[in-house]
Amino acid sequence: MKIWQKNISVNQLVENFTVGRDREFDLQLAAFDVLGSLAHTQMLESIGLMSAADLASVQKELKAIYKEIEAGNFTIQPEVEDVHSQVEWMLTQRIGEAGKKIHSGRSRNDQVLVDLKLFFRHELQEIVEQVQTLFNLLIKLSDQYKDILLPGYTHLQIAMPSSFGLWFGAYAESLVDDLEMVLAAYKISNKNPLGAAAGYGSSFPLNRTLTTKLLGFESLNYNVVYALMGRGKTERIIAQALSAIAATLAKMAMDQCLYLSQNFSFVSYPDQLTTGSSIMPHKKNPDVWEIMRGKCNRIQALPNDIALMTTNLPSGYHRDLQLLKETLFPAFTDLKECLHMATFMLENITVKEAILEDERYKYLFSVEETNRLVLSGVPFREAYKQIGAAIENASFNPQKTVNHTHEGSIGNLCNEEITECMQDVLQQFPFKKVNAAVQQLLS
Amino acid sequence: MKIWQKNISVNQLVENFTVGRDREFDLQLAAFDVLGSLAHTQMLESIGLMSAADLASVQKELKAIYKEIEAGNFTIQPEVEDVHSQVEWMLTQRIGEAGKKIHSGRSRNDQVLVDLKLFFRHELQEIVEQVQTLFNLLIKLSDQYKDILLPGYTHLQIAMPSSFGLWFGAYAESLVDDLEMVLAAYKISNKNPLGAAAGYGSSFPLNRTLTTKLLGFESLNYNVVYALMGRGKTERIIAQALSAIAATLAKMAMDQCLYLSQNFSFVSYPDQLTTGSSIMPHKKNPDVWEIMRGKCNRIQALPNDIALMTTNLPSGYHRDLQLLKETLFPAFTDLKECLHMATFMLENITVKEAILEDERYKYLFSVEETNRLVLSGVPFREAYKQIGAAIENASFNPQKTVNHTHEGSIGNLCNEEITECMQDVLQQFPFKKVNAAVQQLLS
Amino acid sequence: MKIWQKNISVNQLVENFTVGRDREFDLQLAAFDVLGSLAHTQMLESIGLMSAADLASVQKELKAIYKEIEAGNFTIQPEVEDVHSQVEWMLTQRIGEAGKKIHSGRSRNDQVLVDLKLFFRHELQEIVEQVQTLFNLLIKLSDQYKDILLPGYTHLQIAMPSSFGLWFGAYAESLVDDLEMVLAAYKISNKNPLGAAAGYGSSFPLNRTLTTKLLGFESLNYNVVYALMGRGKTERIIAQALSAIAATLAKMAMDQCLYLSQNFSFVSYPDQLTTGSSIMPHKKNPDVWEIMRGKCNRIQALPNDIALMTTNLPSGYHRDLQLLKETLFPAFTDLKECLHMATFMLENITVKEAILEDERYKYLFSVEETNRLVLSGVPFREAYKQIGAAIENASFNPQKTVNHTHEGSIGNLCNEEITECMQDVLQQFPFKKVNAAVQQLLS
Amino acid sequence: MKIWQKNISVNQLVENFTVGRDREFDLQLAAFDVLGSLAHTQMLESIGLMSAADLASVQKELKAIYKEIEAGNFTIQPEVEDVHSQVEWMLTQRIGEAGKKIHSGRSRNDQVLVDLKLFFRHELQEIVEQVQTLFNLLIKLSDQYKDILLPGYTHLQIAMPSSFGLWFGAYAESLVDDLEMVLAAYKISNKNPLGAAAGYGSSFPLNRTLTTKLLGFESLNYNVVYALMGRGKTERIIAQALSAIAATLAKMAMDQCLYLSQNFSFVSYPDQLTTGSSIMPHKKNPDVWEIMRGKCNRIQALPNDIALMTTNLPSGYHRDLQLLKETLFPAFTDLKECLHMATFMLENITVKEAILEDERYKYLFSVEETNRLVLSGVPFREAYKQIGAAIENASFNPQKTVNHTHEGSIGNLCNEEITECMQDVLQQFPFKKVNAAVQQLLS
Repeated sequence: MKIWQKNISVNQLVENFTVGRDREFDLQLAAFDVLGSLAHTQMLESIGLMSAADLASVQKELKAIYKEIEAGNFTIQPEVEDVHSQVEWMLTQRIGEAGKKIHSGRSRNDQVLVDLKLFFRHELQEIVEQVQTLFNLLIKLSDQYKDILLPGYTHLQIAMPSSFGLWFGAYAESLVDDLEMVLAAYKISNKNPLGAAAGYGSSFPLNRTLTTKLLGFESLNYNVVYALMGRGKTERIIAQALSAIAATLAKMAMDQCLYLSQNFSFVSYPDQLTTGSSIMPHKKNPDVWEIMRGKCNRIQALPNDIALMTTNLPSGYHRDLQLLKETLFPAFTDLKECLHMATFMLENITVKEAILEDERYKYLFSVEETNRLVLSGVPFREAYKQIGAAIENASFNPQKTVNHTHEGSIGNLCNEEITECMQDVLQQFPFKKVNAAVQQLLS
Repeated sequence: MKIWQKNISVNQLVENFTVGRDREFDLQLAAFDVLGSLAHTQMLESIGLMSAADLASVQKELKAIYKEIEAGNFTIQPEVEDVHSQVEWMLTQRIGEAGKKIHSGRSRNDQVLVDLKLFFRHELQEIVEQVQTLFNLLIKLSDQYKDILLPGYTHLQIAMPSSFGLWFGAYAESLVDDLEMVLAAYKISNKNPLGAAAGYGSSFPLNRTLTTKLLGFESLNYNVVYALMGRGKTERIIAQALSAIAATLAKMAMDQCLYLSQNFSFVSYPDQLTTGSSIMPHKKNPDVWEIMRGKCNRIQALPNDIALMTTNLPSGYHRDLQLLKETLFPAFTDLKECLHMATFMLENITVKEAILEDERYKYLFSVEETNRLVLSGVPFREAYKQIGAAIENASFNPQKTVNHTHEGSIGNLCNEEITECMQDVLQQFPFKKVNAAVQQLLS
Repeated sequence: MKIWQKNISVNQLVENFTVGRDREFDLQLAAFDVLGSLAHTQMLESIGLMSAADLASVQKELKAIYKEIEAGNFTIQPEVEDVHSQVEWMLTQRIGEAGKKIHSGRSRNDQVLVDLKLFFRHELQEIVEQVQTLFNLLIKLSDQYKDILLPGYTHLQIAMPSSFGLWFGAYAESLVDDLEMVLAAYKISNKNPLGAAAGYGSSFPLNRTLTTKLLGFESLNYNVVYALMGRGKTERIIAQALSAIAATLAKMAMDQCLYLSQNFSFVSYPDQLTTGSSIMPHKKNPDVWEIMRGKCNRIQALPNDIALMTTNLPSGYHRDLQLLKETLFPAFTDLKECLHMATFMLENITVKEAILEDERYKYLFSVEETNRLVLSGVPFREAYKQIGAAIENASFNPQKTVNHTHEGSIGNLCNEEITECMQDVLQQFPFKKVNAAVQQLLS
Repeated sequence: MKIWQKNISVNQLVENFTVGRDREFDLQLAAFDVLGSLAHTQMLESIGLMSAADLASVQKELKAIYKEIEAGNFTIQPEVEDVHSQVEWMLTQRIGEAGKKIHSGRSRNDQVLVDLKLFFRHELQEIVEQVQTLFNLLIKLSDQYKDILLPGYTHLQIAMPSSFGLWFGAYAESLVDDLEMVLAAYKISNKNPLGAAAGYGSSFPLNRTLTTKLLGFESLNYNVVYALMGRGKTERIIAQALSAIAATLAKMAMDQCLYLSQNFSFVSYPDQLTTGSSIMPHKKNPDVWEIMRGKCNRIQALPNDIALMTTNLPSGYHRDLQLLKETLFPAFTDLKECLHMATFMLENITVKEAILEDERYKYLFSVEETNRLVLSGVPFREAYKQIGAAIENASFNPQKTVNHTHEGSIGNLCNEEITECMQDVLQQFPFKKVNAAVQQLLS
């Protein structure tokens, strides 16, 4: 069933090819499609395009459908093209002619657009919440292990003393910057495209300001041509925001795989969290971190996938854009799973103590010794040469203590300041306002 | 059930996260896993690691399982980790202890590797066959419409006369070059990794030359470290080969969308092959070509996805590689579907005649007129200026005939030569030899 | 000359290969390197690591060098490795021993980091200013041509009436969202990494809060391990921000190339702004837009380039990161040039009037006619069928007027609201504060 | 000076923007432009479009210009647009009117195309030769160190014994497969586009078969529309071929950086080949391998850059394609430099002996021990459990000998077979025929 169907039916091969996996991904949009229609119909009534009676019956039934979706009792029937047609069809089955009127003043294009924006807002909020959980854990681990030293590497060469406090804390602070990208993506998503119709507006006297307010959007995509141009662009920018978090997780996963290697052995996990080998009985493989690294690197590739699918398309809608659902939607699930698993693993991590007592790490202290000389009055370049010579002559025998005091150093991690930065970013997400609007619509 | 399981069971969360969608994609490997085991066990028997009696019972039952797979009666049970464990488990259920012996002398790593190579060979063969079908159709259309002229554009500006013969033929010839890439990918896939075990070989006196012959491989991945290094690399190279075909289809799809636009109207399709709009009753949208363009552009992004997931991994297996199944496998299906739909659509195309009679296309003939002057003795730069002046003064009034005779031009398409080039490439694929070996294994 | 040189000199081949084009790109960092040293030395004096006298002489000479850089009189000598060594060497030549002391308490790593952040801030500011200029022009054009109609396309099919007002305005509004990404990138860049040394901090009692204030940074990269992790990450995020603007320009360029094609002829340019053909005298090619499209698409590829060069590198510095200079720096120049040329071209655009009078565009009005029926009481699905039938029967004869009134539609472009949105984003860039700090440092 | 110039001169801003860095890259095409003209003019004479006398004078002067180019005495003057105009202009200056005739029957489009194909052939040949040198060295090192064992890792966990013989040999064999990709790219490049003019052929009775033979091409791009379509496509496919080699080098570089880390210390280099740190006197950094890794990863990103710049461009020339020169050309230089440096470094590598005597590597032998039990009659799953238990109980005490005999294993590297595979690929490159044709043209 296609709501635009004329007398000629579309070839079945064409139908299958063009619909593809759309029904599958549309299921994730169902709740948001209902929200959009709740707002759209209130607006229609306000401008005289729907009677108060019709509105009442439509609203009641849409809310019922919303509950069915939430309860997991919603499916898209095989003969129905998409989620929008399914909701409209159910409505018409249940309340008759009034159901058909909800499509006035909009096109499938702006309907999909608004569904997507509402869905993206929802997914980004979940991701922000999970990032916050992981951030809190990293800060906690950083505080907890702030005195346990770790070799610091540059060029993968032993360089200077680091600490588990620094290592955990670095990934926490990385997430703060990542959320700046998510915030930008959220702001771009949190604008109302409804009313753009097919990208050229409508001759109906729509009140787009009203639907903006009802749906809790911060603002509108004013220009209707731009509203449509947001399809593909919004997806690409969201993918870039996700890729920021993914890059942080992937780097952490790489560190973990390295530190779990017997050549480092800086961290370990309970046996139940590692996996074995079909021919090597001693293996305790960091598969969780490897799968996380792989999934996150795939997410890092996502913005480019979207760019390749949208580049050089002139303005105006093209059906290619539909495929972005199957490109982007799984990334939300993957990233949420990765954030969850990273948190789970880190809750079970054991860090190794006294690593630096191993002789091979003594060169870590060469900068400390150089600086000690400088503080006692030797010019830096001179001190550098003396220590270099001692290393060459194997007479280098450093004190193995670290006394770093400046901001962000081993002895002064500034985790409180970092947490404040996180709070600063978090409070810019208007989740409260958005969720209140959604609750209001459903009440 | 994990065949490497020790006393400690893996956490369920870890299990779910690391297995992911692997069971789903492993189903596509089932038949090839059986083929690999048929060859491996013959080899084991030949070096005394399996008795003749065990071999007989194993071979019989593996062939039975193969038939079940072909009949669609094979599933991976939820408690079983992957297709390899499933086959081994079924075998052991049915023939007892002998079933357990098939894993001797190999690791899951080289088992997956050989399954993948056999699967890739199979998929590439199907793609080559579909490319051939599309090629033949394009050549046929090129011959059929060789006299119908079309504006040729450069910079999207009207440039010189072209023809449907040239246009269809160009895409045919493009597929010839694309198959050079597929051939390279096929050659790289058609080498035997079995025996590499976990990437460091085996202390068993394996006969890898024998399995190479039995499985119809052209050669071996000799070095066992390299055999393992082929994971990820083979996928990336295959993705590049697929991307060559995809780029050709995507460009053709872009042309189609443009030529179907009312501003060009060079081609058309029956109504049943186009789709409509929910608010614009006159629309006949080229959705098939748009979806094809989108899918093919996604395939074009694939090599980069794989590069991002494998770059900077040191040598040796990493679990990230497992995820390449869900990245690459759907591309085979997508590309085959696109090849099929391109063929289907082109079988139904209508081309417009007499396009160049429209006044706006008369400037197409400026080069013809310039050359006419040159052939009559005017130096080229002089002739160019004369025609340019005529165009400026609106006195340009060209003869609208085209008489191109050189190789590959409107009047001399060289479709036979192009077809010969295609045959040259096709005959380099050793499908016959490969398929015969597979038949022999199953007989 | 290498400031870390021991007795063994590095092989010349190695030297050439590893330094590569670094000296060339370092020139762009020279002014910022001096700024960093001005702040760093003030701080050194404040913690007793530099005498007041030395500070005075260092500051005076650094400011002199800054002026030489501004005047274009600064070069990196062939035997000097990089800009940092060059500045230090010049200083030492001119003021003696005091010059050598400026490297205390920092490493080349955090020195490069801070130079890069200062440079990025500067480049992003220039880009924001150019975006603003282009935005203003687009809004002006949108207002100016708000009554000139244009066909609106979906699927490249004639769809509904659009207007030049909508078209220009859409790209203006697109730039607003793009600046949200630039703002996120700016915020991430505007944090002080100085004091992180090689990524593990320093045993000197540095006052990083002081250098943060002196350099006008909003905040610190507190955690020193994270500060170093910002290398590569900052570049990738900036590239994503640039890619947002680039995607907008590329799409506009594609529209321009299409609209300049004789099959559309919606816009034109003076002959001096188009280019010709060596064999076709009538051609007026839109080369500027094509080069812009190509450059912008290359910028769109940039984040992925950077991801591929940094993915799966464990934490800690790696020399690969140096190459990001030659990957990212030209993108600033390219994008600024593209913004400039887009502005220049649009200042010279001519739009075609009365396009919709052409018969082929009459179907644009089918939605208008459908809605007219709906407003007169016909249910939407019914009206849709009537108009569809009229089109089939060739009896469709629409009124060619458009009366759209809602927010963002042809009759109500909301350019003022869009301009307010732009102002909202612009005022969040702390350029004034940043520039004041820089002036203060130099005074 | 523009050869297509009409009365109106192009705006200087437009000129600068569109020409960009083209003159710089065109220098690399100069020699090939002359070759193309040598062949084209012979053909023109053969079809009566140039007199024998003119041909003689043109050929003589073109050969003189070729020698100037080879001697480094060729420049493109600032007022000349590109290399093609420069050569034509020089010719006309020197021999008068005859010089102007060489442009008959071709367009700048097919002239650039043929120049590029000739240039690509040349660069690919140089790369193949360098790959061969590196391959030979790797095989030599593999043979030389075949008895020195190395830990083999999976999941970065200690897995099974490997050897330097396997490690070096793996990268050698990797290069064999990489050359399959280069061969495909070479074949695609080795086809003659000359005669396609602007992509729609010519009304002159060109003899494209003759120029094909004269230039040593294997075949033609027959269809003229396809010949033009090869622009961008050829570049992308060549970039994919280069990326295959780059991926091999990048992985080797990653291994090197890891093995040079003090946590592995498997290999070392003379001090002159490593670099130091400005604050850590003990550092011996593997900068060459890091820069190589970075450069090679950038080359891996290249095919995607090109895809993004060419995707969704309809058929026919677009000026964007010009930018591919500055995208692709530097990759040849970079890759050749990387191949050279990889060879140089490996010539100086020192491998560590007796690595496996370190206690931490004893678990490497668990598979050996398991197999030993299997060979003595214990079923595999049983043996696996016994060894696993011994490892758990710390009673695992393996024999530290490795006796692998099968093809491609530690004891049987098959370097001769791998070398034969290399020869098989190498002999498919028709360098001899190609170079002979070029010599013939110049004689």
